[in-house]
Amino acid sequence: MLKFDETEYRKDLTAQVNAMAEGKKIADEITKQGFDNIFFVGVGGTYSMMMNFVTLAKQYTNIPIYLEQAGELVLTDNPHLTDKSIVITASKSGDTVEIVNVEKWLKKKNVRIAAMVMSKDSPVGKLCDWRIPLQVFKGVEFEYLSIYGVFYGLLADHGDFDFDRFYDQVKANMVEGIIKVQKDYDDTAEEIAAKYYNTDYQLWIGGGELWGEVYLYTMCILEEMQWMKTKAVESSEFFHGTLELVEKDTPVFLVKGVGKYRPLDDRVEAFLKKENNNYTIFDIKDHMIDGFDKEFEPVISPIISTIMLNGRIAKHLEAHSGHDLDMRRYYRQFKY
Amino acid sequence: MLKFDETEYRKDLTAQVNAMAEGKKIADEITKQGFDNIFFVGVGGTYSMMMNFVTLAKQYTNIPIYLEQAGELVLTDNPHLTDKSIVITASKSGDTVEIVNVEKWLKKKNVRIAAMVMSKDSPVGKLCDWRIPLQVFKGVEFEYLSIYGVFYGLLADHGDFDFDRFYDQVKANMVEGIIKVQKDYDDTAEEIAAKYYNTDYQLWIGGGELWGEVYLYTMCILEEMQWMKTKAVESSEFFHGTLELVEKDTPVFLVKGVGKYRPLDDRVEAFLKKENNNYTIFDIKDHMIDGFDKEFEPVISPIISTIMLNGRIAKHLEAHSGHDLDMRRYYRQFKY
Repeated sequence: MLKFDETEYRKDLTAQVNAMAEGKKIADEITKQGFDNIFFVGVGGTYSMMMNFVTLAKQYTNIPIYLEQAGELVLTDNPHLTDKSIVITASKSGDTVEIVNVEKWLKKKNVRIAAMVMSKDSPVGKLCDWRIPLQVFKGVEFEYLSIYGVFYGLLADHGDFDFDRFYDQVKANMVEGIIKVQKDYDDTAEEIAAKYYNTDYQLWIGGGELWGEVYLYTMCILEEMQWMKTKAVESSEFFHGTLELVEKDTPVFLVKGVGKYRPLDDRVEAFLKKENNNYTIFDIKDHMIDGFDKEFEPVISPIISTIMLNGRIAKHLEAHSGHDLDMRRYYRQFKY
Repeated sequence: MLKFDETEYRKDLTAQVNAMAEGKKIADEITKQGFDNIFFVGVGGTYSMMMNFVTLAKQYTNIPIYLEQAGELVLTDNPHLTDKSIVITASKSGDTVEIVNVEKWLKKKNVRIAAMVMSKDSPVGKLCDWRIPLQVFKGVEFEYLSIYGVFYGLLADHGDFDFDRFYDQVKANMVEGIIKVQKDYDDTAEEIAAKYYNTDYQLWIGGGELWGEVYLYTMCILEEMQWMKTKAVESSEFFHGTLELVEKDTPVFLVKGVGKYRPLDDRVEAFLKKENNNYTIFDIKDHMIDGFDKEFEPVISPIISTIMLNGRIAKHLEAHSGHDLDMRRYYRQFKY
């Protein structure tokens, strides 16, 4: 399999799953200190990675939870952000400019920060109050797992989420479950990549707890790493404009969720089956990891999605296009 | 001027400005009844029209304000939505399926509804507790003005916004100011339309209180009404993926705001000037309506933007492309 070292991957995943316990400890400490609300603060890939937590939280808790773009927050502030707030932020590299800036700004406001970052010695790591462990740089599944401990831990401490049962199921099923999806999906991923690596434009649709996945994959993978034009639109919004673009041969991709928003995806699917001959459906239901209670399936669905899209398809796109996923025209190439 | 009947337009605008007083009365009534929070609930064009209010509110009030997509809200609910909430919703036609459905759902939860709608006798008009007057079907500037009365009225009643001063300036300057922008911008709009009506793909960037404008114009005008492919991305997010698409000749469009988020637009502009030869900047500052205090300029900026984009450029695009803005492949053509 392309760019897949099973032994290494299993070791890293296992460490990341074990680190959920550390995230839960951070949550317990925060809960003991007390807090009024939770702010997710990210930019680009981390911003989109956080979206599913904010969306799903509505089904679990009445803790006020906000999502802010780091570059915007420092310009306008938010009236609900106080020294009683908890900020969850993230920077894999530990030196993302917007995240370093927002941390400095938050410190002046005496806001407590938990940051997902690989190294405690990085600028982001040094500025945060708690480091949320992240084992490896690549693979959004590691980021999701990283946030699980602290976020669902906070919800559990508030009486809103059965963390122990969830974590038991993660420990029992997640590592081998993820590896199985990687392997099982690889042939399909190759077929999709072979068919679409050379398209000039792709229309992507998804919603609910998977909207962040669609947003991230189109912007941070297809656009940033393959220089392919995309449009991403939420399933709930698709019928209010973008549908008019769909012709028989338009390349359309739909990521179908397994939670409460699924009827919106169903409606898009029915439309595509009638009006388009060039669609691809990623139904997370067909790739669900075994061993989880039904109520946890939406919670883990972004992990399955990112394995299929970023984990597998992106690698095959790279092989077909010859366009290295690490090649950039601008990003971090020079100051702008 | 294309599709511009000045006499009729002045009459309608004047009526819409006068109706702000009615919106303020609704706000006073709601305030007297009491409320815990405000939910904006929309879909497509109305959803995007509402975005600026939610964004700007952060700079004015600590009233909790939420934005929900109507089709999603009925599936998951929101823990902060109670019979102490006020919902502001909108449907120009008065029969948008998602809005009718969400109103019925809200009524069962005993949530009070103020709805922007043309007719009290429409399904949406019948289901709401207060009708927020809307004079005409076309022209997003009418929708913005329609919401001004009730929303900034609620903020004023909470001690967070100087409604009287704002409304005085609206009454003194808005109608003729809008007409002046329509006229002054018409030649430039024609040039832009002539240059770009035939492009296959347009990249649009903007942020803050103007993000809703970029979202709406790309999805509801260019995609829905001209069947042109677009990508819209926030200024704050542009540097985290989409920038890699920019080549010298990529058609890029940047809407620059006049408020606190402007530095993010400045950064995009500097990048485009260096890396692209085919960009168009819509700087709202250059088209500001006279007579408003500086603090109100971001508040009225979406009106100026929509006049330039939907009001003028769309009309010229239609003339050049020969693609009627009212032509649809699917929307409201049949059930799907």
